Amino acid sequence: MPRTEGGRRGRGTGGGATARRAARVQSASGTKLSYIRRKVPEYELLDEAGLAIIEANADTILEEIGIEFRDDAEALEMWKAAGAEVSGERVRFPKGLCRELLKTAPHTFVQHARNPENSVEIGGKATIFAPVYGPPFVRDLDGVRRYATIEDFRNIVKLAYLAPSLHHSGGTVCEPVDIPVNKRHLDMLLAHMTLSDKPFMGSVTAPERARDTVEMCRILFGEKFVDENCVVINLINANSPMTFDGTMLGALKVYARANQACIVTPFILAGAMSPVTVAGTLAQVLAEALAGAAFTQLCRPGAPVVFGTFASSISMQSGAPTFGTPEPALVSYGAAQLARRLGLPFRTGGSLCASKAPDAQAAYESANTLNSTMLAGTNFVLHAAGWLEGGLAVCFEKFMMDCDQLGMMQAFSRGVDLSENGQAMSAIREVGPGSHFLGCQHTQDNFQTAFYRSAIADNNSFEQWSAEGALRAENRAGQLCRRWLDSYEAPALDPAIAEALTAFVAKRKAAEADAFA
Amino acid sequence: MPRTEGGRRGRGTGGGATARRAARVQSASGTKLSYIRRKVPEYELLDEAGLAIIEANADTILEEIGIEFRDDAEALEMWKAAGAEVSGERVRFPKGLCRELLKTAPHTFVQHARNPENSVEIGGKATIFAPVYGPPFVRDLDGVRRYATIEDFRNIVKLAYLAPSLHHSGGTVCEPVDIPVNKRHLDMLLAHMTLSDKPFMGSVTAPERARDTVEMCRILFGEKFVDENCVVINLINANSPMTFDGTMLGALKVYARANQACIVTPFILAGAMSPVTVAGTLAQVLAEALAGAAFTQLCRPGAPVVFGTFASSISMQSGAPTFGTPEPALVSYGAAQLARRLGLPFRTGGSLCASKAPDAQAAYESANTLNSTMLAGTNFVLHAAGWLEGGLAVCFEKFMMDCDQLGMMQAFSRGVDLSENGQAMSAIREVGPGSHFLGCQHTQDNFQTAFYRSAIADNNSFEQWSAEGALRAENRAGQLCRRWLDSYEAPALDPAIAEALTAFVAKRKAAEADAFA
Repeated sequence: MPRTEGGRRGRGTGGGATARRAARVQSASGTKLSYIRRKVPEYELLDEAGLAIIEANADTILEEIGIEFRDDAEALEMWKAAGAEVSGERVRFPKGLCRELLKTAPHTFVQHARNPENSVEIGGKATIFAPVYGPPFVRDLDGVRRYATIEDFRNIVKLAYLAPSLHHSGGTVCEPVDIPVNKRHLDMLLAHMTLSDKPFMGSVTAPERARDTVEMCRILFGEKFVDENCVVINLINANSPMTFDGTMLGALKVYARANQACIVTPFILAGAMSPVTVAGTLAQVLAEALAGAAFTQLCRPGAPVVFGTFASSISMQSGAPTFGTPEPALVSYGAAQLARRLGLPFRTGGSLCASKAPDAQAAYESANTLNSTMLAGTNFVLHAAGWLEGGLAVCFEKFMMDCDQLGMMQAFSRGVDLSENGQAMSAIREVGPGSHFLGCQHTQDNFQTAFYRSAIADNNSFEQWSAEGALRAENRAGQLCRRWLDSYEAPALDPAIAEALTAFVAKRKAAEADAFA
Repeated sequence: MPRTEGGRRGRGTGGGATARRAARVQSASGTKLSYIRRKVPEYELLDEAGLAIIEANADTILEEIGIEFRDDAEALEMWKAAGAEVSGERVRFPKGLCRELLKTAPHTFVQHARNPENSVEIGGKATIFAPVYGPPFVRDLDGVRRYATIEDFRNIVKLAYLAPSLHHSGGTVCEPVDIPVNKRHLDMLLAHMTLSDKPFMGSVTAPERARDTVEMCRILFGEKFVDENCVVINLINANSPMTFDGTMLGALKVYARANQACIVTPFILAGAMSPVTVAGTLAQVLAEALAGAAFTQLCRPGAPVVFGTFASSISMQSGAPTFGTPEPALVSYGAAQLARRLGLPFRTGGSLCASKAPDAQAAYESANTLNSTMLAGTNFVLHAAGWLEGGLAVCFEKFMMDCDQLGMMQAFSRGVDLSENGQAMSAIREVGPGSHFLGCQHTQDNFQTAFYRSAIADNNSFEQWSAEGALRAENRAGQLCRRWLDSYEAPALDPAIAEALTAFVAKRKAAEADAFA
């Protein structure tokens, strides 16, 4: 079990030079926590009456319209046996069925990391940050935008390992398109397992890849441990509106039956996959999440499951997705409330943007998304660092800038210290009117921890900033990124385990012909 | 009186070409409102127990430590007469005195604009945005950073007039350093009064300049109207910690006695002007605001007054102010709660940043500040557009980007539409599983107003964005800015009033020798 107050660590896991290097990296970019325990309240956007309307509409969708479970005869049989009305691939749910099934789902659970200090709690007042998921392109440190490779993938995993404000190694941090599509999950998993000791995500692109994931987890954690504990978390997107497809259902069944966590996420570009209104989108999101999450409990009662929401709007001129705008923020706040009422952990948001460059647009949109993500009380924050171009590219510079912002969110989440030291009346008495607090005892006692220190923001004068080359934020972020990568050393791993993982990957690769589509 | 739902306007105030041009500008950048009426709740950071601790500490500061009222013998006499204990320039307040005095201060009030459609409500659920205040430098449309001039000043006033998401013309939108310091307030006021018809701020740098402000308001609005209504709002900064200086007190007295509004603002760089902790800063802010705001009621019971807070942290390495960090956000949330409990309108935040360029740092910091400003329930948002370099420079490109963000905040503040149309069940029924909402009737009926449309964000593909020159957000903002300035036409003003204002400025200028310090 992780410590309840996501422990602060002054040292890396290695000794000597590694530890000193890790300490330097960490002190320059926020406090190392295994996860955040929020001491600030959630923002309650909707009142009881509003939430009740949306819940009633979700019930109506489930009962009258139903949800399609496609290309999965077994799923349809399971629903029939559970008391749902199945016609073709359409499943209609008697009122209350999904909520009843979800009573076995845990309110919070622990995802274990191979380094127990990095295990995370998911749910309740805990929040964890994971990197971007899914981009086929990379904007590299030379500012070149190109297809991503396994080397890029490994570098992102290394950076996430080093980042004190990232609690999770993530999953498909980019698509390594230089590896055949039917083999790349093996290289991705191997990277997460060997280059990092933070928790990670599994493959969902085919049931057999989910099975490979579970097999590799058994090598890493031991078979019995995996059956009894959550060691991998997996992204199961609904094919909105109101549809789950066979691929996602196949992966979901493998993971839930193996007692591993699923994040069931209606993937919504409002206006295309849902109505153009917030209240309409929320009712649909709730219905989809209820059906998908309840299905995990049909597979294995008690399997950990997260209520996910990916919300974006579209440009009504071009149909392109937009990010950081007001409507998705409203959806996130509302969906978080619905998940809390359901007693499920919640996932949404991140550092989302539509910009093609790590410029002001990228930052405004990311900050708008991240602020609503945090105040919503989100438990699992995917896409927290590196996202660019509506998720089509991972940007190294933005990855570093986002990590800096995540450090700020960690600090914000500590809330207001109301202890005697926090009240600081001794300082106010000592200083008095018209003087300053810079040298007073209280300031000296507290200044090391008082304010968040950014490793990227430049707060100097215009003159000094100019003399230092008038760098933009992304330039400084790129420099920091190179220093981090130079400082990287892999966390220790039992050589026998490393060998077994490598052998498994080699064996599975040999069994498959290359496929690139 | 303004309409309670800050009316949407499809037309400019002129006819024909002007109206068409204004409509083009507006449709490209959000909805024109005279002010925002928030339909979303405030974020309540602190609970009752936490707020009570801070209020008790503020009472202790007022009673035991006291506040200095410097270089103003009259103020000290007034406090003595009101029952305070005065020793030297230190004023100590019997418990409850300030709160008792503030019972005559209005909870909300109207600041009138010469165009009644632009009058604003200040307090309660109303929020208004005003531009940056005070920068001596400008970052112009060629990216050159130089001293600001009266031409820059006039251009910012024109842009604020054109911006649908700015509700206020502001005050010292930049320092026109090409005009002698003892005369520039006259040119600034003339610009606000003639180039815009939105509400504006007065001069506070000397009591006689405050008197000039009131005189010019009497010319613009009529003497009787000014005595009976608030037509100008004025920024009175405390000289924190726990000090008001003679200049600010002199201006405060002029305005309060003329029934005009004061924003009494503890100006805090935490760690220098207040303790390094949030709770300590909040207690000091509350004590200073209580003393300063209560003093307005000694000058004229019923005079409108706003509880202000300017909160920033400092870099503990260099002493430089930092912005967009977690600690000032916590201070803003807490101070807003304290102001609400006091029943006073509240001012904080804006689009603050320390960056020297309109880059990602500027945007992250501004968005962090603006998000907390909005969710705090701030009534008067100064520095909402254009702020760069810790307030040392106004940046035209950032002004435009900030206005776009303010438009998003307006849209967010509308909250969730829970009407039948908002619930959109007809759309969900019509579309059903596995289809899309793009063509359905509900989408067609609502798509014009469904989502906020940014005039600056680029949501296109990487290929299209590249083909269009791979512009950064600030480049697009600069282009939009030039188009706005080209489209500007002054709102109509009675020629007799314009002449009288010009004559007053000429007379007052002739009476003063040039002074540049």
